Order: sequence, then C-alpha cells, then structure tokens
Amino acid sequence: MTLERFSLNVATTKYWPLADAVAGCVAAGVANIGLWREETIAYGLDRAAALVRDAGLRVTSLCRGGFFTADGWLDDNRRAIEEAAVLGAPVLVLVSGGLPAGSRDLDGAREQVARAIETLVPHAIEAGVTLAIEPLHPMYCADRCVVSTLGQALDIAERFPAGAVGVVVDTYHLWWDDQVWAQIERAGAGGRIACFQVADWITPLPAGVLLGRGLPGEGSVELRRFREAVDAAGYTGPVEVEVFHEDVWARPGAEVLAASIDGYLKYVT
Amino acid sequence: MTLERFSLNVATTKYWPLADAVAGCVAAGVANIGLWREETIAYGLDRAAALVRDAGLRVTSLCRGGFFTADGWLDDNRRAIEEAAVLGAPVLVLVSGGLPAGSRDLDGAREQVARAIETLVPHAIEAGVTLAIEPLHPMYCADRCVVSTLGQALDIAERFPAGAVGVVVDTYHLWWDDQVWAQIERAGAGGRIACFQVADWITPLPAGVLLGRGLPGEGSVELRRFREAVDAAGYTGPVEVEVFHEDVWARPGAEVLAASIDGYLKYVT
Repeated sequence: MTLERFSLNVATTKYWPLADAVAGCVAAGVANIGLWREETIAYGLDRAAALVRDAGLRVTSLCRGGFFTADGWLDDNRRAIEEAAVLGAPVLVLVSGGLPAGSRDLDGAREQVARAIETLVPHAIEAGVTLAIEPLHPMYCADRCVVSTLGQALDIAERFPAGAVGVVVDTYHLWWDDQVWAQIERAGAGGRIACFQVADWITPLPAGVLLGRGLPGEGSVELRRFREAVDAAGYTGPVEVEVFHEDVWARPGAEVLAASIDGYLKYVT
Repeated sequence: MTLERFSLNVATTKYWPLADAVAGCVAAGVANIGLWREETIAYGLDRAAALVRDAGLRVTSLCRGGFFTADGWLDDNRRAIEEAAVLGAPVLVLVSGGLPAGSRDLDGAREQVARAIETLVPHAIEAGVTLAIEPLHPMYCADRCVVSTLGQALDIAERFPAGAVGVVVDTYHLWWDDQVWAQIERAGAGGRIACFQVADWITPLPAGVLLGRGLPGEGSVELRRFREAVDAAGYTGPVEVEVFHEDVWARPGAEVLAASIDGYLKYVT
C-alpha cells in the first residue's frame, strides 16, 4: 500500500479541528498522524488519545518538547514525555531552544541542551518514549534551536542509549548540508533515526522565517534522495509531511491533505 | 593605531555618495574601504580609482563577482576582475549563485561553481586579483549561493593556487557552524583567508532575509572570537564591517561609520 508510511503532521493543517483531521485521514486512507501538544491539550489529552485510537490511526510523533534555555523547561518536558506516552506517540520531538537572552555563548548553550537531555533520559526510558533531537535550519540558531546540523544532533544523541535518544531528519532543515548524507548513514547505523519529516524549501522567505515551508514538490529539495537515504540507512518508519505556511493553513484541511499525499507520492516515494 | 585594520565596506552606508564616504573615512581616521561594483561603475571606474587613491585609502575588496548559474556569468566576471585590478582591490568577492531556475541538483550547482572558478583563475592570476569564494548562510542556498559553509568554500578553493583563489570569512554567514573554528585554521594554514568581514546576527529576520544584519555588538555573534581565530590562523589583513539593513541605511553615513568603528573597537578588537 503506497500510503502505508505516510503520516500527516497536523501542523500542516493547523486550523483543521483535530476530530476533522482524524476523520479526514481515515477517509483518505492515511494510517498515521503526527500530533502537537497545543492541540491535544486543547482537545483533552485522554479524549485525543481515544479519538486517534478509535479511528485506528497510529500516532507517529508528538511535537514538541525542548526549549531548554527557558524557565520551567524541566517540568514542561516531563509533562511532554507523559503526554506522548498517553497518546501512544513513540517519539517526542525536541526543539532545543536558542541562545539565552543576552547571551552569545553558543557552545555553552549547546552543552546546556546535552545536560538537559541527560536529565530527561530516565523519564523518557520509564515512559517508553524516544526523545528525538531535531536539528533546525541554521537561520533559527539564535532564537529557536542551537542544534543546527544532523552531525551536532548525533553528537548529543550518541551520549545516550539509542532507544532513549534519537534524531529527527527533516528535509527543510537539512537540505543545504553537503554532509547530511554521511550523517544520515551514521544516524541509521546507530539506530538513531527516530523521525523523518518532509517539507520543501521555497523562496522568498517570509519575515520571521517561520512560516515559509512548501508542500512536497513545490521547492528546491531533493526529497526522494532524502527518503532513499534514510531507507538505505535502515529506517523503516513513517514519513511525516510537516509544512508551516499561512497560505497552506488558509486552505481547507482535506484539500491540503490531498495535496500532501499527492506531493508525497510524486516526489518522495 | 587601533583602526589600522578597520575597513568600511560601503554596503554598510549604501546611500552615502562615494565621494562623501571616502571623505568621511579620511575624516574618521579610517584607512581602508571595501567597494561595490554598482557604485564604482555609477561613479566612473577610473574616477573612483583616482578618488580613493588620492584620498590615501586602501581598497580592501571589491564586491562582487559570481552568480555562476546566471546567463553571461563569464563576461561579467571577467569584467569584475578587471575592475578590481583598476581599483587596486586585491580581492574580488564571489557570491556563487543559487540553484538554476527549476533545478534541485544542488551537487551539480556546486560543481558548476568550481568549474566556473577554474575558468576564471587564469584571468585572476593575470590581473593579480584573488578570487574570494564567500560561503553564504544556508538560508541563501536556493537563491543566492550554493556554497554554504567555509569547509565547502575551501574544498573548491584548494583545487587552485592559494594566491588565485581564497575564501571570505564573514561572521554573519558562519557564526552558527560548530566546525567553523577548525575550518578557519585550515583556511589560514593554506593561506586562503582572502577577506574577513564582520556583521552581527539579529532577529527577527526580515522578509527575504537580505537586509537583517546588525552592526557589531548588536547581536548574537562572538565577533571577537572570530577575529582572534583568523588572527591565530595567520591572517593579518583588514577587518571589513559589512552590514545590510534598511534601518542602518536610513541613518546618516557619518553616524553609521562612527557606530561601526565603535562596535569594531568594543566587540571585535
């Protein structure tokens, strides 16, 4: 079944109510869904867990923990791990956070991420949830995520057991990196690919650069090459389409899901 | 003299007429200036060369050649090399260009850059101008420059003689890269640091992400660490302050020059 690995990350259809998104996935023959904490909490955690379970959907990831340089990060991340467990999400995606306010100590911030993850590992193991370090595009280094390459993410992940800490391979964040192919091999060899996410790179970037992603096939990324690379590295898990764009969000959810599936089939599989 | 290495890249004071910028540098005790082709051509090439020479200023670089995926790149770059020679600029900065329209072949585009530079090397040697490959921040990879890291720039530069092809170390483009310190060492050991440019990273980024740079000290970059790193690698050349920002451009040129000098003295030296 060609859609077997496809997963809709609900950030792609941000304004589609969760129950509608779940029903829409079932109607489209989609078996997997990636969830976000804000939506599941708003819907009710247990209720959301029941909704996806009763629909027969598999939860592929929960976004997101991290922001380890913010106050209250420990409690918030422990809650996120518990929520992932309740939802049946095998993976909690970590966006590690930027530089602390006023700081220029990038090495220090990166080490702080590693120490925070060290603190969380026992909780993750207990909950049966893999922490997935997501390297974000270097344009987010100052304000969202000091982990900028797959190599850096692996440098941190490899300090811990493979089942406890992995990495996210997201085409949007990594496509520019000539070392990414070697790092995907490294990640696969170590059993570290916890999540594979697909979005395309389009220009010009919008102000703030947060909502500039393209649906698969709209942009510059060799998406199929990435899918083949993670497959060759031994990854057999889901392929999440995760696109943030105001223009995409303004369209009806079912239409965006159909476009995501179409792009996935044409440019990823 | 503490300003000995300071150079004003005139892109920082974009709307300051060239003659005023030259006089402003002299008045401020600045001995070096980085020029752009558009301004020198508009002013008259020979006239611009005489202007800076008569003022006793040293031209530290000419921006820019490159855009090797555009039609007419060869003629344009040969002209740029000749202009650099006329201006007495030892270095022509190369912004290599993005993906060809409609292409996703990033490896191919990068190889095309190397082949274009190979074609230009004899002209550069003949003119006594060093071609300086500038790695641009990965956020420009699709549309402005497929060379995204100092390591990639060196991989290309090292195919050619050191006097003919070097690299630009620009703090704005490279600050996020945990490998940059090792690559600066590599660049220095090979005599490849042809140009050192300083700008700070500030957020949020503006739409199009072109005009979002901060003056030295306004942002997140460990500028002094970069200056110390290029020095430790054996670089003794000028330090160009090169900032693109509408808000900076809206200020009087002399005021921006003073702020650049101030930031340079406080955060770079």
